Amino acid sequence: MSVTAPQGFEAAGVVAQLKSTGKPDVAVVVNRGPLHAGAAVFTSNRAKANPILWSEQVVQDGVVEAIVLNSGGANCFTGAFGFQTTHATAEKAAELLGISPGDVVVCSTGLIGTGDEVFRQKVLTGTADAIANLSADGGQDAAEAIMTTDSVSKTSVYRGDGWTIGGMAKGAGMLAPGLATMLVVITTDAELTSAETDAHLRAATRVSFDRLDSDGCMSTNDQVTLMASGASGAAPDPDEFRFGLIEVCTDLAAQLQRDAEGASHDITIQVVGAATEDDAVEVGRSVARNNLFKAAIFGNDPNWGRVLAAIGTTQAEFDPYAVDVEINGVRVCSAGGPDRPREEVDLAPRAVSLVIDLKVGTASAVILTNDLTHDYVHENSAYSS
Amino acid sequence: MSVTAPQGFEAAGVVAQLKSTGKPDVAVVVNRGPLHAGAAVFTSNRAKANPILWSEQVVQDGVVEAIVLNSGGANCFTGAFGFQTTHATAEKAAELLGISPGDVVVCSTGLIGTGDEVFRQKVLTGTADAIANLSADGGQDAAEAIMTTDSVSKTSVYRGDGWTIGGMAKGAGMLAPGLATMLVVITTDAELTSAETDAHLRAATRVSFDRLDSDGCMSTNDQVTLMASGASGAAPDPDEFRFGLIEVCTDLAAQLQRDAEGASHDITIQVVGAATEDDAVEVGRSVARNNLFKAAIFGNDPNWGRVLAAIGTTQAEFDPYAVDVEINGVRVCSAGGPDRPREEVDLAPRAVSLVIDLKVGTASAVILTNDLTHDYVHENSAYSS
Repeated sequence: MSVTAPQGFEAAGVVAQLKSTGKPDVAVVVNRGPLHAGAAVFTSNRAKANPILWSEQVVQDGVVEAIVLNSGGANCFTGAFGFQTTHATAEKAAELLGISPGDVVVCSTGLIGTGDEVFRQKVLTGTADAIANLSADGGQDAAEAIMTTDSVSKTSVYRGDGWTIGGMAKGAGMLAPGLATMLVVITTDAELTSAETDAHLRAATRVSFDRLDSDGCMSTNDQVTLMASGASGAAPDPDEFRFGLIEVCTDLAAQLQRDAEGASHDITIQVVGAATEDDAVEVGRSVARNNLFKAAIFGNDPNWGRVLAAIGTTQAEFDPYAVDVEINGVRVCSAGGPDRPREEVDLAPRAVSLVIDLKVGTASAVILTNDLTHDYVHENSAYSS
Repeated sequence: MSVTAPQGFEAAGVVAQLKSTGKPDVAVVVNRGPLHAGAAVFTSNRAKANPILWSEQVVQDGVVEAIVLNSGGANCFTGAFGFQTTHATAEKAAELLGISPGDVVVCSTGLIGTGDEVFRQKVLTGTADAIANLSADGGQDAAEAIMTTDSVSKTSVYRGDGWTIGGMAKGAGMLAPGLATMLVVITTDAELTSAETDAHLRAATRVSFDRLDSDGCMSTNDQVTLMASGASGAAPDPDEFRFGLIEVCTDLAAQLQRDAEGASHDITIQVVGAATEDDAVEVGRSVARNNLFKAAIFGNDPNWGRVLAAIGTTQAEFDPYAVDVEINGVRVCSAGGPDRPREEVDLAPRAVSLVIDLKVGTASAVILTNDLTHDYVHENSAYSS
């Protein structure tokens, strides 16, 4: 059901010929109200794509009525012409929907540097086509239209007490926090103010999408948007709503991890015993970005020395000669020295659990990553050709 | 000629059966004086191997009389027993050479977590064997005995005005600054004080080994040592000596880059127009660590969008819509937008030149890196097996 699971939303996904494959590539999601509360978080990359520059302005007043998303071109580093394309896309959608262009978020994904006149015309035509096809059952079509190198569409639904949250996501490469190369749209029919929407979204992305670090590369186009229609008439308990939203975000983040480009292992890095949560995140992220560790996991090699070498590059509070490391339930390293034989670790399954105990305090964090594989190198060496 | 090119040095490399291949794996370099000035720089990884912990103490008084190096085992995260092994190695060498163990630097390289009783006995036997075979022509043997996954030995010699600098290096994986996974020994017969030795070494490594970032992974065992024998009787002009030392260090760093594990391209990243040298280094390093950019170069794809995305993750002063990017002489991006067609870029040669002009100031820096290849993943997934 995706983003149309909550009441008050319509969506569509259509073919605009942006992708050479002829697959759907333009999606529109519309909030029919009665409320139009909206919030978004964006990539922290300082090199921001045109749709990010536009959408940052749109969400400032806390009102979002519609989102237009395209795959098949990132419209990033395409100059003033590219920004005009984003602006024209919002104008076109607003005109057809009878709303203000200043309430239309725009998202693009695909190759950086793509965004010429042909691209613009296809996006505008696709936007009109999608709006003509809007439907309360269109969530799945929209989820498929935002796929790039994704092998499957990603959707999630959470049912609360009289209200619902729905979400869709795309993302397969350039997955790193702040955020990942991903576009995410989350909808809810709960009654929320703009301020509540914003606070819940930031709290949820901080512990979900921001903890996904597949390949250490940060995108120029990342965006997660939450829209609330209030159509259920139910005002949720704040804690319950936040729990549900974290569930949806965590579920979508795990789907992104499982579909990461070329990956053969999904690695869950649990850092415990840290002095602070920031320390735990820093250590987890350092291990998640260590190519040697990631290549070892690809080779089913529980090379804990590379884990310790990665921890050693951080500023976190720890003593290398106190740290314990457990891989898939086997403690291969205790107090910074060898413990159980590495032969006891079975790395054949796709899911890998790495637990690092810093033995300093009580804070913890979970970081999701993938291994570094031949297929990752292949897919990313051939991406633009 | 390697480290025995300058007068006053003897070296040897022998087989101690630490490597399963039966190739040489223990080297000794001895400074016969009359001076024994020495200095070293070490990995900035906080998870330091036992030989690093030992050698940091040795060099504090500015006197180094000998170095024992082994490949075939890093003696890192091997606990108190491992530290005792390093200590015993220095004691053994000192006893046989008639010097103080406190003037014997020890270096180890190989798999982390390796360093049991068998390892210790082999290292001690190898040390004695190498000392029995010391020779003024032993530099090349020593250079071969420190190789790990290196495909060729790395040596360099610079002839000054009456004095000489010689060097040897090993390193092929885990190459990142602060320093790379490398062991380097540099010798000179110039007359230098300990303070001069230290100052020259820090100045030279800062612009050579510290600018090599092959795979972003920082080792636990890195060390660069400079020993001065004064045997030439020539006191060098400080500027001339520093120039020569930078030449040797840059030459060895380039040899490490060319032999990096699995690499198919050697990428020279030149950052110009930066506000400060630190900014230029930060930008170059960010690009050097971007897996997507590195995979693109492997695929002969001049994907400049990934360069800009990497720059955007830094704190350097720049405007993404002012930056120019040139790949192998073709300006593919100007003012943050597309310029020449990517088809004009020929990435077939192994050497790749990337020039990034931040258009802010006049500072610059050069960072050396490699592409991310199938072979890199393969070699590092199979390393410990």
